[in-house]
Amino acid sequence: MLLISKIPPFFDPWRWSRLEIDEGVEVKDSEGTKRRRATRGTIMPKPLDHESINENVKKVAYAVRGELYLRASELQKEGKKIIFTNVGNPHALGQKPLTFPRQVVALCQAPFLLDDPNVGLVFPADAIARAKHYLSLTSGGLGAYSDSRGLPGIRKEVAEFIERRDGYPSNPDLIFLTDGASKGVMQMLNTIIRNEKDGILVPVPQYPLYSATIQLYGGSLVPYYLDEESNWGLDLNNVRQSVMQARSKGITVRAMVIINPGNPTGQCLSEANLRELLRFCLYENLVLLADEVYQQNIYQDERPFISAKKILLDMGLPISKEVQLVSFHTVSKGYWGECGQRGGYFEMTNLPPETVDEVYKVASVSLSPNVPGQIFLGLMVNPPKPGDISYLKFTEESKAVLGSLRKRARIMTDGFNSCRNVVCNFTEGAMYSFPQIRLPPKAIEAAKKAGKVPDVFYCLKLLEATGISTVPGSGFGQKEGVFHLRTTILPAEEEMPAIMASFKKFNDEFMEQYEGYRGYSRMLRAAPPKRHLLWAVVDLDELGPGCDIDGHRGLYVTR
Amino acid sequence: MLLISKIPPFFDPWRWSRLEIDEGVEVKDSEGTKRRRATRGTIMPKPLDHESINENVKKVAYAVRGELYLRASELQKEGKKIIFTNVGNPHALGQKPLTFPRQVVALCQAPFLLDDPNVGLVFPADAIARAKHYLSLTSGGLGAYSDSRGLPGIRKEVAEFIERRDGYPSNPDLIFLTDGASKGVMQMLNTIIRNEKDGILVPVPQYPLYSATIQLYGGSLVPYYLDEESNWGLDLNNVRQSVMQARSKGITVRAMVIINPGNPTGQCLSEANLRELLRFCLYENLVLLADEVYQQNIYQDERPFISAKKILLDMGLPISKEVQLVSFHTVSKGYWGECGQRGGYFEMTNLPPETVDEVYKVASVSLSPNVPGQIFLGLMVNPPKPGDISYLKFTEESKAVLGSLRKRARIMTDGFNSCRNVVCNFTEGAMYSFPQIRLPPKAIEAAKKAGKVPDVFYCLKLLEATGISTVPGSGFGQKEGVFHLRTTILPAEEEMPAIMASFKKFNDEFMEQYEGYRGYSRMLRAAPPKRHLLWAVVDLDELGPGCDIDGHRGLYVTR
Repeated sequence: MLLISKIPPFFDPWRWSRLEIDEGVEVKDSEGTKRRRATRGTIMPKPLDHESINENVKKVAYAVRGELYLRASELQKEGKKIIFTNVGNPHALGQKPLTFPRQVVALCQAPFLLDDPNVGLVFPADAIARAKHYLSLTSGGLGAYSDSRGLPGIRKEVAEFIERRDGYPSNPDLIFLTDGASKGVMQMLNTIIRNEKDGILVPVPQYPLYSATIQLYGGSLVPYYLDEESNWGLDLNNVRQSVMQARSKGITVRAMVIINPGNPTGQCLSEANLRELLRFCLYENLVLLADEVYQQNIYQDERPFISAKKILLDMGLPISKEVQLVSFHTVSKGYWGECGQRGGYFEMTNLPPETVDEVYKVASVSLSPNVPGQIFLGLMVNPPKPGDISYLKFTEESKAVLGSLRKRARIMTDGFNSCRNVVCNFTEGAMYSFPQIRLPPKAIEAAKKAGKVPDVFYCLKLLEATGISTVPGSGFGQKEGVFHLRTTILPAEEEMPAIMASFKKFNDEFMEQYEGYRGYSRMLRAAPPKRHLLWAVVDLDELGPGCDIDGHRGLYVTR
Repeated sequence: MLLISKIPPFFDPWRWSRLEIDEGVEVKDSEGTKRRRATRGTIMPKPLDHESINENVKKVAYAVRGELYLRASELQKEGKKIIFTNVGNPHALGQKPLTFPRQVVALCQAPFLLDDPNVGLVFPADAIARAKHYLSLTSGGLGAYSDSRGLPGIRKEVAEFIERRDGYPSNPDLIFLTDGASKGVMQMLNTIIRNEKDGILVPVPQYPLYSATIQLYGGSLVPYYLDEESNWGLDLNNVRQSVMQARSKGITVRAMVIINPGNPTGQCLSEANLRELLRFCLYENLVLLADEVYQQNIYQDERPFISAKKILLDMGLPISKEVQLVSFHTVSKGYWGECGQRGGYFEMTNLPPETVDEVYKVASVSLSPNVPGQIFLGLMVNPPKPGDISYLKFTEESKAVLGSLRKRARIMTDGFNSCRNVVCNFTEGAMYSFPQIRLPPKAIEAAKKAGKVPDVFYCLKLLEATGISTVPGSGFGQKEGVFHLRTTILPAEEEMPAIMASFKKFNDEFMEQYEGYRGYSRMLRAAPPKRHLLWAVVDLDELGPGCDIDGHRGLYVTR
């Protein structure tokens, strides 16, 4: 022990750091307070040095803006044209905003225009009337904090929308507006997670908001696998198994996340599926967190969107009063795509008033969600009606966006399925395509040599070659040895064929380069992919060497 | 142990809850999995029932929107006119938004107007040019997510503002834009706090964002007391003592919060004070979190605002490279008061790149701050310049707001000091008044009988009598037996005299009602309060019974 009898009042770590102190020596000042435990020539880290920050912060992984995105940003700076399909950000890829809501919010931002005699020259009368309506719901316009739950008048409009959608009453006091749906999800997970023994069931592949937030708040992610062969269906036997496994590790499973329509998988849950999983939540005492932000993005007619709340209430007593449910929605998705405005809401069902009060209290710490985003939400749930001046234009714009997304979903799926070693389920809803990339063993080896996860390796090569910025499937969770990537279906419709051609060229050359055993690739080419996958057992030993794909022998995928 | 051999696949807790099960009995299903530990006639709580949510969420206290606010909201619903001075929300109390920034953001929201031949009739040319400038900084307008740190072009404008303000370079990559300053504070505290043994030094009285967030993230608040007698000055001996005390409880003190100008206390830190506390941070290895959101709100000329960063860099090497500093600013305060837009930033100094990366990663989980709020921030740091069409109007509007706030600060301080048993330091900056209310013993007794904290009791009575909605001082932290309330100085200048008269009438009647011993109140009345407090020792025994104020004998306050 080294006792420094007098430490100068102006303690100088710059000099200390250069002191040669033997390892493990303790340094005390004249009051006997331990100052620094020094190792040879080093000083204690500062509080925001990397080694001393919150471990949970370090554990967070968020692939959507991870290595690929950073590399893409670099390439963009260097002047390369990048197609950002890594994040569902429609306006960034050229989607124009809907006119009417923008007119209303612009007028709310500039209330002095409402008294301007020329205002009618640039704004239609119904936009002016609507702006006055929303301003009357605020207490001081867009510049004043609202109630921390959001403006009461807009929560009422949201409740009316939910009532029309589901056919059941909705209580505005159980609807909280948020700065985008993500913030709501984060708040609910923070409320649920107490420690690392609390588990949250999350679909895999999943949207990494969930894994990242669970890591940040120190809980345990309990994955359940969606079934790629049945178009990413939710099989409750898988979920049950995940719960059992988690319990055997001492984890209390407390909540189940569903993303419907799916992100990144694009599937729509059927009514039967929803009923089954609500019963499961009752039986296992789980909160259901229903991420329904893509409810307007449906690209087929067989499976329309049905909300978890509607099914729950359809099931009647006692279950309708028992299962705790929180559902999320946003202005960022749908045909609005107003991501940058950060408007969202969540609705709580069967939560006791004391818990709702706690959620309110925590919301109030950051005062209020942004008010313009709240107005967008009001407009989304209460769009122009037949007879309104702006109705026709609004409807045409909306239909054009949704119709084009539907076409793009088809072009993209077909494009992927025309590529060598790529198979892709159709995007039933949401705004993503999640093709499986069958990486040849040599590609996997090359990735290992480069120190990269195989799908990251593939996506980086794709980015460098074509400028298409995707997210490797490993960021969403993957089964062992299976590789995917996620793209959005958002590039402009007219650019889509060129993008898919560029993808195909890259992919097929990549496969050519890395396929060591021609028989294997011939086999895949011989059976061109269809919409649904078929699985077959292939004895790799029979096919000869070079087919031991990443250690998965004996059973391999073909169609 | 009760083993239920067959639980039906559709488990019905509605029926279970009516089962009469002896207390402590364990219930297992056929697989031996423990289902519910029942007490007589009850079932296990659901995950979002109050008893099973995150304890840290329950611990959060947030007085600004606490009991007083809720009661005020009720009274408002019942038709009573409420003057909301509980939160610094200028537009809610009638402050008009500045015209130029609103014009720019309105145009950014409605970019189609930029091609409208009539746009010049309602918008000035410099607002149109500025809107085009900001739109060019986005990638897809206000509807697209920005980079999670905020738009690079706006971070550059913020850096230039900081350079002009401090005279030192600022790096845009170390500036992150946020949905209001609160969100930034929350993120930094989440990064710093690892567990309940991590302490954060917070001034008392403090803005409850800090206490609430420290509770939410499970850290320990280490209070240091500001000195009311020296106009809420920061005495480092107090801080040192707090650190010692915390350490003796095994707490690692990791950060120090300063609020400059002070909230709720309104004081401005002197240059000497800032130097001293930066040295302290170096010596004690603390991150300095500098809440500088009121830097534009200064109501005297002796102590202008100086940023912590400027002082740090003024001090030169080695300290300028050693102390880790994060400073916060916002569009909600200043003369802008654009609270509802939720625009803010923080700047990091001396943080290693790996930590900045972690902060970036966590910011990216909620994708991006709202883009309109970012544009407001750009406009705030880069307002119209001399020669611009809108310069004169903008400058006049700004001066009018600040000039009026200065007058209101004075009216309010003088008003409080004219009241019986009320003493109040002058509001040097920020937007709050924090008078001390000398509650007579009988009032304290009456509060105890009503089951209320004394200052809550007083503030509730004030609210019921006058409609003035304040925040009891206990919400900000108080020394034992000393009571305050916080009001904003934001009610309209012309309404201020009437509000203060109404306050005085209530207060003086309240004091009359509860003062048991006339000599005590006579004594206070004999020495009318001045700007600075004087303290004197009064032997209460000499004054006779009735003066044992809440157990504080021997030393009592007078002037």
